[in-house]
Amino acid sequence: MSWLNFFRGKAEPASADIARDRLTMIVATGGNRRNGDDFLPRMQKDLMEVVLRYVNVDPSKVKISTERGADLSTLAIEVELPPVKEVRRAG
Amino acid sequence: MSWLNFFRGKAEPASADIARDRLTMIVATGGNRRNGDDFLPRMQKDLMEVVLRYVNVDPSKVKISTERGADLSTLAIEVELPPVKEVRRAG
Repeated sequence: MSWLNFFRGKAEPASADIARDRLTMIVATGGNRRNGDDFLPRMQKDLMEVVLRYVNVDPSKVKISTERGADLSTLAIEVELPPVKEVRRAG
Repeated sequence: MSWLNFFRGKAEPASADIARDRLTMIVATGGNRRNGDDFLPRMQKDLMEVVLRYVNVDPSKVKISTERGADLSTLAIEVELPPVKEVRRAG
């Protein structure tokens, strides 16, 4: 579906491999129209807390970018995930 | 930039207007490769809590969709925001 294609990046066959090792979170909402109600910067802190609850990463591996347009504000959080270790189950 | 263009939808000039009245959150991460570590369903609950902390919406206005692929899992949360009211400031 469209979300998957976006994150895979149709034009770059290798990008699925890249995406596998990352967690990407994007939030978009109305921009200046919602004057005085720009909650994205505050929300960012809470979202990072949730991410770090599930992913044990070095904060230096987290990339946060925000953009504010006239009609749209976006927040992107990209986390480089640690390598998956093979887990051997006893028994 | 690319995020903005994605949410605006280059092909549909009207979609910026639509996006203004919504909050969209997308999370993507490695799929089956991270066996036994599929935290997206659990994360979904926590993310919804954060969203509802900032946006006062009817739960029926929230649309959640998940997709699980061989290499990528995605979670999309779309919230229809209530109309912005003109706020008159006293003084």
